[in-house]
Amino acid sequence: MFPALVTLLVWQPPTLAAQQPSPAAARTAAEVIDSASEAEWRNLDPENTIHISLPQGRVIIELAPRVAPRHVANVRALVRSGYFDSGAIIRSQDNYVVQWAVRPLAEEDTLPEHISQSLDAEFTVDGRGFPFVPAPDGDVYSPEAGFVDGFPAGRDPATGQTWMAHCYGVVGTARGVDPASGSGASLYVVIGQAPRHLDRNLSMVGRVVEGMGLLSVLPRGTGRLGFYESEDSWAVFDSVRMGSDLAPEERAALQIMRTDSPSFRDLMTAARSRHEDFFVHPADRIGLCNIRVPTRIAPSD
Amino acid sequence: MFPALVTLLVWQPPTLAAQQPSPAAARTAAEVIDSASEAEWRNLDPENTIHISLPQGRVIIELAPRVAPRHVANVRALVRSGYFDSGAIIRSQDNYVVQWAVRPLAEEDTLPEHISQSLDAEFTVDGRGFPFVPAPDGDVYSPEAGFVDGFPAGRDPATGQTWMAHCYGVVGTARGVDPASGSGASLYVVIGQAPRHLDRNLSMVGRVVEGMGLLSVLPRGTGRLGFYESEDSWAVFDSVRMGSDLAPEERAALQIMRTDSPSFRDLMTAARSRHEDFFVHPADRIGLCNIRVPTRIAPSD
Repeated sequence: MFPALVTLLVWQPPTLAAQQPSPAAARTAAEVIDSASEAEWRNLDPENTIHISLPQGRVIIELAPRVAPRHVANVRALVRSGYFDSGAIIRSQDNYVVQWAVRPLAEEDTLPEHISQSLDAEFTVDGRGFPFVPAPDGDVYSPEAGFVDGFPAGRDPATGQTWMAHCYGVVGTARGVDPASGSGASLYVVIGQAPRHLDRNLSMVGRVVEGMGLLSVLPRGTGRLGFYESEDSWAVFDSVRMGSDLAPEERAALQIMRTDSPSFRDLMTAARSRHEDFFVHPADRIGLCNIRVPTRIAPSD
Repeated sequence: MFPALVTLLVWQPPTLAAQQPSPAAARTAAEVIDSASEAEWRNLDPENTIHISLPQGRVIIELAPRVAPRHVANVRALVRSGYFDSGAIIRSQDNYVVQWAVRPLAEEDTLPEHISQSLDAEFTVDGRGFPFVPAPDGDVYSPEAGFVDGFPAGRDPATGQTWMAHCYGVVGTARGVDPASGSGASLYVVIGQAPRHLDRNLSMVGRVVEGMGLLSVLPRGTGRLGFYESEDSWAVFDSVRMGSDLAPEERAALQIMRTDSPSFRDLMTAARSRHEDFFVHPADRIGLCNIRVPTRIAPSD
């Protein structure tokens, strides 16, 4: 019963860094980021960007349409319908997740009529056509670990099945016990040590690219699983909008480093072997969820 | 330059769970914890327990004297001298650490005369005599990963050198670039994804066993590295005491599950293969920092 995927633990050659030593080995992560070319950055696509306004500030989510196309489409339609404008963070569980919804989960969801009330699961997807950029040092949880379109991901090389990994900041679709019970009407964000046991058990729709520091400090709920026991504790949204429904000057002017770029490969190399004076023992290793995908303010024209 | 510890990635037999299937395989983690015998729990030793009182509540730290004996002794002496009573959380960096000290770090430390102002590093320790309980599925960062005295740890089997792993909630000694510049006068707690690149670079003194939910929600500092830019933002301690200096009825009546007990082994097995109906794809894997050491209120006599 145990080793269903025994290949998970097999030694993986350190494909990136060790086989391709480069000048990046002696550069810091900051130096690699600063010297990345313009072509190695991409603008957020407003059609895949959600803006959440909270009294404390804004949270920006990038959607992952190739990872879970049906769920992303439903979330986009929900945002566009104004559905989440009466939403709130209703759960904050320490070292785990915050979660939002429009109404208490005990009440039956009543989504706008033109929107799917539940969706077949998209826990994994056929990723054989995706550019998959491997993390350099393997993974405890996945036979292959790396990045797809800027999102941390696991992959089974035998089948090409691919899934988003539950790293800090990723956004998933809450559901009940029925795998097809999620709709996107309630979403959660990882705020602690990556709960990788959730991988391949939930349909993942994106990643927070700005504002994690607002979500992660919400007081922990005192109810079961960190749900707030009173609506007085909810962090209520002011508004939730698709970037493409905002005026251009209101959109988040963020760029994400392309994870299939040479600079991102060099960044992983620099991050695994820190050469700053502080480090007596550089790890010479890095875990998937310790690799941060850089974000920056788009340079003005 | 890269694979200084190439054995880190070598396949490790799943020693615990797969080779010793037990009835625990079909039990949930909660069931394993509930059925642990009294002998599988231990009381916190008041001489190794720090009580921090904050306006928001209390934080309880268990010290790890075998991991860093000099640093633990210095921290104990600092607490006992009342040094930390005018301390405060001065840093909160998202997905990384909170840190405390008595005064701004820019000022020179002036510790009580009888206390060491700085200590030789204790980044690793000879752990050949320690009971080392391996985690079942290996680790990206350490050749061996597991638990010593209830603390997450890495170990080099070739030398027996052992170190505390930077998992959520562990407490380390802040220092400057000089490895011998730490005294215990400033300590930090991991509040996000385990920053394992810090392993073997800092002297680790313990682990928070109660109150992480208070520390992890402190507003993030807006200065460099998450330091607060104004002392108005500091979370000031009401008091910091050794458990042994409190009246018995004021001490935290907590018990920790022994990590060298059969129930802890069964707990790791249950946590890696979740059989609750929710899980469509049990991970059948678990990472070191995803293994939680249970704490409970001591049963009354």
